[in-house]
Amino acid sequence: MTPASTRGFVSLVGAGPGDPGLLTRTALARLRRADLVLFDALVPSSIVQLARRARRFPVGKRAGRPSMRQDTIHALMIRAARRGQRVVRLKGGDPFVFGRGGEEGLALGAANVPFEVVPGITSAVAAPALAGIPVTHRGISSGFAVVAGHARASYQPTVDAIAPGSLTLVFMMAVAEQQRIADALVARGWRSSTPAALIFSASRDDAATWTGTLATLSRGDGIFDAERPGMLVVGDVVSLRARLNIDQDADAREAAANEGQP
Amino acid sequence: MTPASTRGFVSLVGAGPGDPGLLTRTALARLRRADLVLFDALVPSSIVQLARRARRFPVGKRAGRPSMRQDTIHALMIRAARRGQRVVRLKGGDPFVFGRGGEEGLALGAANVPFEVVPGITSAVAAPALAGIPVTHRGISSGFAVVAGHARASYQPTVDAIAPGSLTLVFMMAVAEQQRIADALVARGWRSSTPAALIFSASRDDAATWTGTLATLSRGDGIFDAERPGMLVVGDVVSLRARLNIDQDADAREAAANEGQP
Repeated sequence: MTPASTRGFVSLVGAGPGDPGLLTRTALARLRRADLVLFDALVPSSIVQLARRARRFPVGKRAGRPSMRQDTIHALMIRAARRGQRVVRLKGGDPFVFGRGGEEGLALGAANVPFEVVPGITSAVAAPALAGIPVTHRGISSGFAVVAGHARASYQPTVDAIAPGSLTLVFMMAVAEQQRIADALVARGWRSSTPAALIFSASRDDAATWTGTLATLSRGDGIFDAERPGMLVVGDVVSLRARLNIDQDADAREAAANEGQP
Repeated sequence: MTPASTRGFVSLVGAGPGDPGLLTRTALARLRRADLVLFDALVPSSIVQLARRARRFPVGKRAGRPSMRQDTIHALMIRAARRGQRVVRLKGGDPFVFGRGGEEGLALGAANVPFEVVPGITSAVAAPALAGIPVTHRGISSGFAVVAGHARASYQPTVDAIAPGSLTLVFMMAVAEQQRIADALVARGWRSSTPAALIFSASRDDAATWTGTLATLSRGDGIFDAERPGMLVVGDVVSLRARLNIDQDADAREAAANEGQP
């Protein structure tokens, strides 16, 4: 046994939007060798179970249920690493996009526990992409902004800070506030005809997309579904969806093709 | 052979920032089965070579060299798919973040060629993360904006549109314009003491990070290196880097540990 393998270590790993195929190769390698996995509730079991030899604990956070305190998560990671274990802190999307990865990294650093960050596919970009919406597109949008949409305190400052129509806006965790976000944008000066999309469970079997405008969102015509993770995308790029006929069944087709191979 | 495997198909695949470990499992599967791979010059050969059975062609774009015309790329993809081939269009980062994936998807759709998008890890988030800079962090930044930084026409409208200090700003392809971007931000009202980072070749062996402020960038103290892909990150989150001691040698350590295993 080498000295390296006896030393505890923490990997802050992004699991991506949910499809196990969108896990990175490094994330998979870390899961397979992990002794302990602390996972967010939104990470599907098909990904968590890839850590075959690890003890696996959910540590939050799902709407309506209590989640583990952040300092308790820190203490668990630090204790296990000090015992020489390989710890994976598994987060939905990317660890540093509203994932508190920074806080956890600071806590590990303060405790002198070595750690790494394994970036994951963030839903902020992948969810629109899989729904046929490019967050940037030449001649339509030369940039995008990503902001948390779960509470007015999280999105209002950004709505105030950005000139209407200038960027594609991506509001994460925005299902509950969809109507108020639309109202806030129109009050800020966005055209009420600006296209908007609600995207649920991106990359998963129960994925769904609603499209409309800020006006129809304001009228309450959007879809409320507290059971699935959801985001709101606002901007003219949303209108490309109708022309971008993306094949959603590529995986199923690939599987069928593989069966026909020796 | 099943009908599915005789039908041509295009996958617009994100290769991530460069480290083959940051490729997704689906991207790897698509490369392994590809008949034809059209790859951007920034994608490292260690990733391109994973497409063992494919013909592989570079189609641009690298600074200083001519790249293939966009409509030529479209024609190549369409022709190969119509011949029944599995085509992978392999792009650095994510196909829809300044990757022209939208344009290519529209061309494929107009030609009635079925295609899919396989999201990749975008450098916009991963490059700062690997440098110890979370683009969001509670109490410091509740959102971030991503914009192309290679020309004034691409970034000035966004600089104008965003209130100073309100969001973390990520300027992609910003090495050549670093000084003028800093000037533009200070002219817009950003504090000249705002922390800034230049990140080169994120996730690759020759990765490097420079940190300073808008003032030092304006003085020309930043690093110019046209040979490596680079980005500029501006905002108070940059200052977290000094406290986030991320282990950059995790892969090497894992390899050493694996050698010690049976």
